[in-house]
Amino acid sequence: MKKIIVLLTLFLNSLLVLAQNQDSLFIRSVFSNALTDNTSYENLRTLCKKIGGRIGGSPQAAKTVSWVEETLKKIGADTVYLQPCMVRNWKRGSKEICYATTAKNVKQKFDVCALGGSIGTGVNGIKAGIIEVKSLDELKLLGEEKIKGKIVFFNRPADPTLYNTFRAYGGAADQRFIGPSIAASYGAIASITRSITVVTHKYPHTGIMHYIDSLPKIPAFAISTIDADNLSTIINKDASVKVYLESTCYDMPDTISYNVIAELKGSEFPHEFIDIGAHMDAWDITEGAQDDGCGVVEMMDVIRMYKQLNYKPKHTIRVVEFMDEEMGQRGARVYAESVKKNMEKHIASIESDEGAFLPQGFSFESGDETVEKRFEQWKYLLMPYGLWNFHRGYSGVDISFMNDQKFPLIGLNNDSQRYFNYQHAATDVFESITLRELQLGTASIASLVYLIDKYGF
Amino acid sequence: MKKIIVLLTLFLNSLLVLAQNQDSLFIRSVFSNALTDNTSYENLRTLCKKIGGRIGGSPQAAKTVSWVEETLKKIGADTVYLQPCMVRNWKRGSKEICYATTAKNVKQKFDVCALGGSIGTGVNGIKAGIIEVKSLDELKLLGEEKIKGKIVFFNRPADPTLYNTFRAYGGAADQRFIGPSIAASYGAIASITRSITVVTHKYPHTGIMHYIDSLPKIPAFAISTIDADNLSTIINKDASVKVYLESTCYDMPDTISYNVIAELKGSEFPHEFIDIGAHMDAWDITEGAQDDGCGVVEMMDVIRMYKQLNYKPKHTIRVVEFMDEEMGQRGARVYAESVKKNMEKHIASIESDEGAFLPQGFSFESGDETVEKRFEQWKYLLMPYGLWNFHRGYSGVDISFMNDQKFPLIGLNNDSQRYFNYQHAATDVFESITLRELQLGTASIASLVYLIDKYGF
Repeated sequence: MKKIIVLLTLFLNSLLVLAQNQDSLFIRSVFSNALTDNTSYENLRTLCKKIGGRIGGSPQAAKTVSWVEETLKKIGADTVYLQPCMVRNWKRGSKEICYATTAKNVKQKFDVCALGGSIGTGVNGIKAGIIEVKSLDELKLLGEEKIKGKIVFFNRPADPTLYNTFRAYGGAADQRFIGPSIAASYGAIASITRSITVVTHKYPHTGIMHYIDSLPKIPAFAISTIDADNLSTIINKDASVKVYLESTCYDMPDTISYNVIAELKGSEFPHEFIDIGAHMDAWDITEGAQDDGCGVVEMMDVIRMYKQLNYKPKHTIRVVEFMDEEMGQRGARVYAESVKKNMEKHIASIESDEGAFLPQGFSFESGDETVEKRFEQWKYLLMPYGLWNFHRGYSGVDISFMNDQKFPLIGLNNDSQRYFNYQHAATDVFESITLRELQLGTASIASLVYLIDKYGF
Repeated sequence: MKKIIVLLTLFLNSLLVLAQNQDSLFIRSVFSNALTDNTSYENLRTLCKKIGGRIGGSPQAAKTVSWVEETLKKIGADTVYLQPCMVRNWKRGSKEICYATTAKNVKQKFDVCALGGSIGTGVNGIKAGIIEVKSLDELKLLGEEKIKGKIVFFNRPADPTLYNTFRAYGGAADQRFIGPSIAASYGAIASITRSITVVTHKYPHTGIMHYIDSLPKIPAFAISTIDADNLSTIINKDASVKVYLESTCYDMPDTISYNVIAELKGSEFPHEFIDIGAHMDAWDITEGAQDDGCGVVEMMDVIRMYKQLNYKPKHTIRVVEFMDEEMGQRGARVYAESVKKNMEKHIASIESDEGAFLPQGFSFESGDETVEKRFEQWKYLLMPYGLWNFHRGYSGVDISFMNDQKFPLIGLNNDSQRYFNYQHAATDVFESITLRELQLGTASIASLVYLIDKYGF
C-alpha cells in the first residue's frame, strides 16, 4: 500500500511538473510573440494620428467606435458588436485665454485649459481679483468676505515624495473635482486649479470636474504647473493683480455612443466570460496614447495573439472597449447593468488604464480568498517577466461598477513614475509610447488570462 | 525566572521594532529628499550640455575630471582627490561614410560609425563586395574562398524576445567585440556590425571592439538597425553590390587621466570603506546621459543628501568616479590595485551603470552568504520603493576588478526595457532622462548604503 501511495504521489507530482512546464512554455511564447509583433503599436499610431483626441460625444469618439469595431473584426474576433449608451456631450469651444494684469499694467499670459465639464466664461471673459489657497479647508478659514467676487486659485501640488504617483494624484484631486463648487459656495466667480501632476512643465492637464447641484456653477480652469508657480509669485508680490479668464465651453444634449465588445468564443464554457477592458475615449487636447489608447490596442492584441498562437480558450474572452470613462463612465455603467440583467457568469474582469509603462503586477478587488491563493501559485510563472506585485486594491474605474458581483476585478499595475507627465495633457501623444512597454502590457494580460482560463478562481 | 525571560524578550523585541521604525523613517526621508531635489538633474545637464561626449583621452574627459572634482568639493565631501591612470587615446577622426552601389550604379547611403578602437580606412576609403552573416560560426562555413577581399556584414539582431535587454545585448556582442578579427582571419578587409540594440531606429551604436593580436587589423563599423535591414535587402536582391566605407580613426599614444575619488569620513570606522561608483567617460558620439553620466551625478548626490539630512555614517563613504570604462577600464584596474596594495578594508563596493531607469533591486557577487541574508532582512524596507529583486549575479564592469576580494560587489539593477534605445548612440542625451527615475537612483543607493553602514555584512 505504501508503495502504491509513493508511486501515485510520484505520478501526480510528475503531472504537476508537466503542467507547470506547459504553463511556463506557453507564457514564454506569449511574451515572445508580443515582443516581436508591432500590430498593437501600429494600431495605436492610427488611433492617435488619424483620429486623435476623442472625448465622449465628439465626432472623433464616433470615428473611434467604428475604427475599433472594424479593427476587431479584421483581427478575427468571433463576434463584434456595439452596446449603446447615452453620453454627455460637452464641448470645449475655442482655445482658452488667461492673463494677469499687475498694478503697473504689465500683462502676463498663462497656459490654461478649461476643466472637463466646466461652463464657459463666454467671449467677454471674466476679469477679477484672485486669491490663492492650498486646500478646500482654507476657503472656510478665509470665508465669503475675502472670496466673494474673486477667482479662487487652488495651488496645492501633487506630493512628489510619494513613490506611487497615483497616490500623489489622488491627494490633490479634490481641488479639481469639487474645488470649483466649494469656491462658488463662498461667492467665487471662477476657479483655476494647479494641474495635477508631479512634473513641472508648461502643459495644462485637464480632467473632469463636478458641479454640486445646490451650488452656483462657475467656470473652472487648469493651469500648467510652471504657470501655477509663476502666477503664485505674481500674486505674492502684488495682491491687487487682476486676472482675465476666457473660455467658451458648453454642454449639448446627451448623445448616443457605444461600447465596442468583441469575443473569442470559449471551447468548453462559451457562456462564461473573462473580460479584458480599456477605455476608448480620451481628452480632446490629447492624442490619448497613454490614457487609454494603449489599453484599447493591448486588449485587441490579446485576440490577435491567441489566434496566431492557435490558443483556444475554454471560456469566452470578451474584449470590452468602454466609452466615456473620462466624463461619466456611462459605458461602464451600461455594461455592468447588462452583466447583472443577463445574469452572465464572469470568471474575472480585467482592466488596463495605467498607460503603456513597465507592467509590475496586478491588483484585485471583490472575489474571495481564492484570488490571493491563485496569484501566490502563479507568481513564479510571472516574476520572470517583472510581474512581482500582486495585492488587494482598487483595480480600475470602468470595471468598478461591477464590484457588487462575486467575481474578481483585476487591474494591470504599471510603473507610475512617468504616467502624469502625460495624463490629460497635450504631451499624451503616440511618440510618448515605448514599443516594448506596450508589448509587455499585451503579454502580461494575455498570460494572466491564460492562467485564469486554465485554473479559474 | 520565566517572568524575567518574558520581560527581557519583550524589551528586546521593542528595541528591534524601534530600530526597524528608525530605518523605515530614515529611508522615507532619503526618498523624500531625493524626490524634491534637482541638484543631480542640474549637474547632469551641465555634464551633458557643457561637456558632452567624453571618451578616455579626450579634452572632454579631462574637463570632466576637473568638473567632477570641483563639484564634489562644492557639495562638501571631506576629501576629494585624483587617482592617476594611463588611458588609451583613440580618436574617431571625421564623420564616417558608407554607401552601396548596385550593378545599375544606384547609390544608397547608410548611417554608420566606426566601432571604438577600430583603425581607419583612411581618406581614400575601401570599396569592395560584401557578404552578410548571422554568426561567427557562419564565417567558418563560408571559408576564406568566399570571404577574402570582401567586407563582412554581421547582421544577427539582439534577441527582442528576451525580457532583460542586457541579456539580448550580451547575446549579440560577439559580432562587435571579436567579429572584426575573426572576419580578418578569413581575409575580410573590413567589417560592419548591426548595432546591438533591441530598437529599430536610424542611429548607429558604437562600442569597443578588440583586435586579436595575431590577426590582421581591419576597419570595423557599426550600422544602424534600420540601415542593417536596408543593406540586407539590397544584398539579397543584388549580390554584386559594392560597398564604400570611409573612416579616419587612429590611436595616439596612451595619455594620463584620473579617477576622481571623494570621501565622507566615517565617524567610527574612518578606515573602513563603502564604495559607490560610476564611470565618467562616455562615447564621443553621445552626451553620455544614460551611460553613465546619471551614475556619476547620483553618487555625488548621495553625499549632498547625507550632509543635508545630517546623516553621519560610521564608515567612510567613498565615491569613486571611474575613468575609461568604455575603452579599457584602466581606471577601474588602477583602483582595484590600490585597494589591494593598501590592504584597505572595504565593507562593500556598489556600482550604478544601467542608466537612469526605474530601480528594481540589487545584484551582488563575491562576499559570503551573509549578503543574501541581509538583503532578505532589508527587503521589507526597500520594497515600498519598488526595490524587489535581490539576486546573486554580475554587478558591474568597474567594480569587477575587485572580485578577488572578500567583500561583496553590488550593482544597482534598473528596468532594462529602454536602456538600449540610448546606449552608445547619439540618442543618449540629457533629454532622455526622466527626473524622477534619476532621483530614485540616488535614493535607492543612499538607502542601501545606510543599511550597510548600520548593519554591515
